[in-house]
Amino acid sequence: MPWLQALQSRFAALKDNKLFEAFVVIVIVVSALVIGASTYEFEPRVLAVFSVLDVAVTLFFLAEITVRMLAEGSLRRFFSQGWNVFDFVIVVASLIPVEESQMALLGRLLRIFRVLRLVSIIPELRVLLNAFVSAIPRMGYVSLLMFIIFYIYAAVGSILFHQINETLWGNISIAMLTLFRVATFEDWTDVMYETMAVYPLSWAYYLSFIFVIAFIFLNMMIGIVLETLQKEHERMDLLQGTGEVGEVHWIREHTEAMEQRLARIEHLLLDRRRESGSAASGPDAAGDKAPG
Amino acid sequence: MPWLQALQSRFAALKDNKLFEAFVVIVIVVSALVIGASTYEFEPRVLAVFSVLDVAVTLFFLAEITVRMLAEGSLRRFFSQGWNVFDFVIVVASLIPVEESQMALLGRLLRIFRVLRLVSIIPELRVLLNAFVSAIPRMGYVSLLMFIIFYIYAAVGSILFHQINETLWGNISIAMLTLFRVATFEDWTDVMYETMAVYPLSWAYYLSFIFVIAFIFLNMMIGIVLETLQKEHERMDLLQGTGEVGEVHWIREHTEAMEQRLARIEHLLLDRRRESGSAASGPDAAGDKAPG
Amino acid sequence: MPWLQALQSRFAALKDNKLFEAFVVIVIVVSALVIGASTYEFEPRVLAVFSVLDVAVTLFFLAEITVRMLAEGSLRRFFSQGWNVFDFVIVVASLIPVEESQMALLGRLLRIFRVLRLVSIIPELRVLLNAFVSAIPRMGYVSLLMFIIFYIYAAVGSILFHQINETLWGNISIAMLTLFRVATFEDWTDVMYETMAVYPLSWAYYLSFIFVIAFIFLNMMIGIVLETLQKEHERMDLLQGTGEVGEVHWIREHTEAMEQRLARIEHLLLDRRRESGSAASGPDAAGDKAPG
Amino acid sequence: MPWLQALQSRFAALKDNKLFEAFVVIVIVVSALVIGASTYEFEPRVLAVFSVLDVAVTLFFLAEITVRMLAEGSLRRFFSQGWNVFDFVIVVASLIPVEESQMALLGRLLRIFRVLRLVSIIPELRVLLNAFVSAIPRMGYVSLLMFIIFYIYAAVGSILFHQINETLWGNISIAMLTLFRVATFEDWTDVMYETMAVYPLSWAYYLSFIFVIAFIFLNMMIGIVLETLQKEHERMDLLQGTGEVGEVHWIREHTEAMEQRLARIEHLLLDRRRESGSAASGPDAAGDKAPG
Repeated sequence: MPWLQALQSRFAALKDNKLFEAFVVIVIVVSALVIGASTYEFEPRVLAVFSVLDVAVTLFFLAEITVRMLAEGSLRRFFSQGWNVFDFVIVVASLIPVEESQMALLGRLLRIFRVLRLVSIIPELRVLLNAFVSAIPRMGYVSLLMFIIFYIYAAVGSILFHQINETLWGNISIAMLTLFRVATFEDWTDVMYETMAVYPLSWAYYLSFIFVIAFIFLNMMIGIVLETLQKEHERMDLLQGTGEVGEVHWIREHTEAMEQRLARIEHLLLDRRRESGSAASGPDAAGDKAPG
Repeated sequence: MPWLQALQSRFAALKDNKLFEAFVVIVIVVSALVIGASTYEFEPRVLAVFSVLDVAVTLFFLAEITVRMLAEGSLRRFFSQGWNVFDFVIVVASLIPVEESQMALLGRLLRIFRVLRLVSIIPELRVLLNAFVSAIPRMGYVSLLMFIIFYIYAAVGSILFHQINETLWGNISIAMLTLFRVATFEDWTDVMYETMAVYPLSWAYYLSFIFVIAFIFLNMMIGIVLETLQKEHERMDLLQGTGEVGEVHWIREHTEAMEQRLARIEHLLLDRRRESGSAASGPDAAGDKAPG
Repeated sequence: MPWLQALQSRFAALKDNKLFEAFVVIVIVVSALVIGASTYEFEPRVLAVFSVLDVAVTLFFLAEITVRMLAEGSLRRFFSQGWNVFDFVIVVASLIPVEESQMALLGRLLRIFRVLRLVSIIPELRVLLNAFVSAIPRMGYVSLLMFIIFYIYAAVGSILFHQINETLWGNISIAMLTLFRVATFEDWTDVMYETMAVYPLSWAYYLSFIFVIAFIFLNMMIGIVLETLQKEHERMDLLQGTGEVGEVHWIREHTEAMEQRLARIEHLLLDRRRESGSAASGPDAAGDKAPG
Repeated sequence: MPWLQALQSRFAALKDNKLFEAFVVIVIVVSALVIGASTYEFEPRVLAVFSVLDVAVTLFFLAEITVRMLAEGSLRRFFSQGWNVFDFVIVVASLIPVEESQMALLGRLLRIFRVLRLVSIIPELRVLLNAFVSAIPRMGYVSLLMFIIFYIYAAVGSILFHQINETLWGNISIAMLTLFRVATFEDWTDVMYETMAVYPLSWAYYLSFIFVIAFIFLNMMIGIVLETLQKEHERMDLLQGTGEVGEVHWIREHTEAMEQRLARIEHLLLDRRRESGSAASGPDAAGDKAPG
């Protein structure tokens, strides 16, 4: 079907068009502004404009993703890229018809995630988000350790203090939330003074918790900085092939060549001496000795 | 007009005079102290002294900037330097006559910015401020990403919570302010407990927000540190021409020269041998082989 | 006793079995979940299940540590590893019979520390904890200095302010807790405004304290970062033996060898010249002069 | 006076005695504990013990500083060391007779500073404090810039808001304290909401202030880290004389010597060739050409 291929190449051209891209960014921003504006109180007339705009944006997004799907040629190739799946889910999610009041709320919430399309369309933001996502696993074990410490302190706290304040220490989940509050220093002394009235030594519980968490947090930060620096160094070392490291390597190789040449010269001289009959007294035996 | 040129060169001499500069700094500090003192309650007599001082400072600043303008020779050259424009705006702004009560307030506010002239007159502060201004763009995309996240969370928050507390979640702007408060850990649990009474799972909203913002902030800081270190390294590498890098380069060049000289020596010896009729068995063919 | 040795080697095989290890991890997690769940309110039937599970976990832990002890062969070898002692204490502590209400509480608290066995069984967490423990001494003197500053400020505070608020400044211990609160910025202005009502200049006490503590904290952090970087550098230098440092060392040694060979060559040439009767005018005396 | 010299050398021996030093540390710690304990409520008998201990400590400190003064030989040499002046002031200050109630308070406060003698007697703490003091000037201009920004914002704040809340914005000093509170995020939203009730746009005042201060603080921290790293590098470079940098320098010098020797060898060979009558075709002219 040649007309299909023609359409496909035209769509591919459209997709890569800078003007079209800029227009998509503008539509996303308009969509974001409509979402933001709809949280204000307006007259019914303005709200009607908003819902028209919303439908227009929805249709445009649908058209835009269809263009990109067709431009790609095959669905499998389209969905093999994570960001395309991301865009597809956001667009499809806002197509779900919303009628009941509860669902209307969900529909409004789903529309908000359209703003995230800004991240998928601006390459610099995409790079940033990729970097963030790739940084998550390296925090894995530290996060696990922190969770274990939160869990243990929360268990101790809910057992010891749940009769003092049910709202703060009622069960282990609530106690973990309270401990997170303590970790952010948010009115943590109020929490402490309350339990100190019953257990006067409970300040040790809070202080040890703060120190342990601060200590692990500090270590995690240092770990991240070190790892980032190390990666940077490795990248620099690869680039620096032509710099100092490269020159040192060049010198090493040429020193080796010079040494061989010198050995040959010495042999030439020694040979001639032997030929002319005069016995070399000193350096004849040690002549080929190499260091290290 | 020779008298004008004489005046101009005299003004230029005055402008660069260390004593004159010190006097300008003192006048700025006095002006700052008057501004500070005028926020206290004083007797009318003292206030009269203040207004006389204020007029004197205004006139002095006017005279000083005129001297600098005339010393520069041409207005275009004067205004081509950003710091001159900065000074000019500050001086002119405090000349605006203020009569009405509302305008009097504005006049007092404009006079405050005279303190900023300290920054423009002390070179070290000028360097600092330049460094700060030049650091802003490198935070561009991270700031944009952070704004998008604030925007999305604020939209979700104002849709879900605006019926719980109109003052905190009334519309998207207020919600962003509330989220900034949460990001500074300022009584954020009060905000959370209020919404948890209606939506028991809303702690996930706050915790995810805090983690995402903290994570991006951490990454931004690491990014800044890395970039600063990299710049510093580049600067050091340029300066270090005489250091290790320079010595390695020197050695490389001289190794090259030594190698050429050695090749010549070997040739001399081989030539003589050939002349004397004895055939060299080994090293004659491999004589000019160079490494790498 | 061959049957004992057979048993021992079988136990050693069991101990190192990956499946068995995974099962131990699962039992620890289940034990942690039971501890967490027991902080909620449940029907008596569920609680009965919990106590059965608790007994089962206790017995399993006892069996597991016995297997590991027997596998090790000798008790001394078993207890020579810190982590084994750690596990043994945790397992034995939860065996203590608890009857009275007060002791029941203690028993429940001791069971919580079973969660820490996750740290001793997952190697990555063990490495993390070792790193944390080894980082404590390097903070020794800074911590001592900080303690001295807390102590001095607390003494001043409790002498000056204990009549203003007995709860905050009653004695030096309470004053130190209050100062820790100030150091975390937790409602510190409330504390300050209260004393400023009596001593209007007491803001200087709080601000100087905050600045000194922040300054020492900053220096401590920089110290840790520097020390970590330094250690990292040393580790890198050791690894880099084959890298630039190694090559430079190789060049140095071979330069030395080349120089000796050159000296021999020059001597050969000078000898021949002397033999052929022609007197060398220039370089004969300075021939062996070495630099540096 | 030989007996004086004998006494002096005995005192010098005593001063450097490890046991005596340890005893001084113990006395300081006891003195610190007495100060701390005296903030608690005790029976008159215990208080009597405390005042006896206080007199004993005072006398011991007097004796100890006399020993050190006599051991030094001359007063000028004694007072030329900053730490001796520091100790002398602390010891003399606690000798001032205190009778009236107001003076008694001062006397108790002065005694607290005895704890600081721990810093002057433990060398590691002395090093730390020296490092802290030497780090102050490098923050000079950044601190000045921060002060200017606080001053400008405080002036604006006290002019605009002093009618809203006299306690927070009454004059420029109080306003600076309030801004410091805002900078520590301490209930800053309470301050903001109050002024937003009158000036709805005043959030911009607070947010801009927080961003500017955070930005300068971040830059200051990066500056400190960079400066510390740079100093560390310089120190390492000096130490590394035996390391890579030293080896490169050694190689450079020896390469220079080898080059000179090679030049001599070539000349020898060329001379002989000329002597034997054969004209050198190529390398005679370019023989002494050196690179760079």
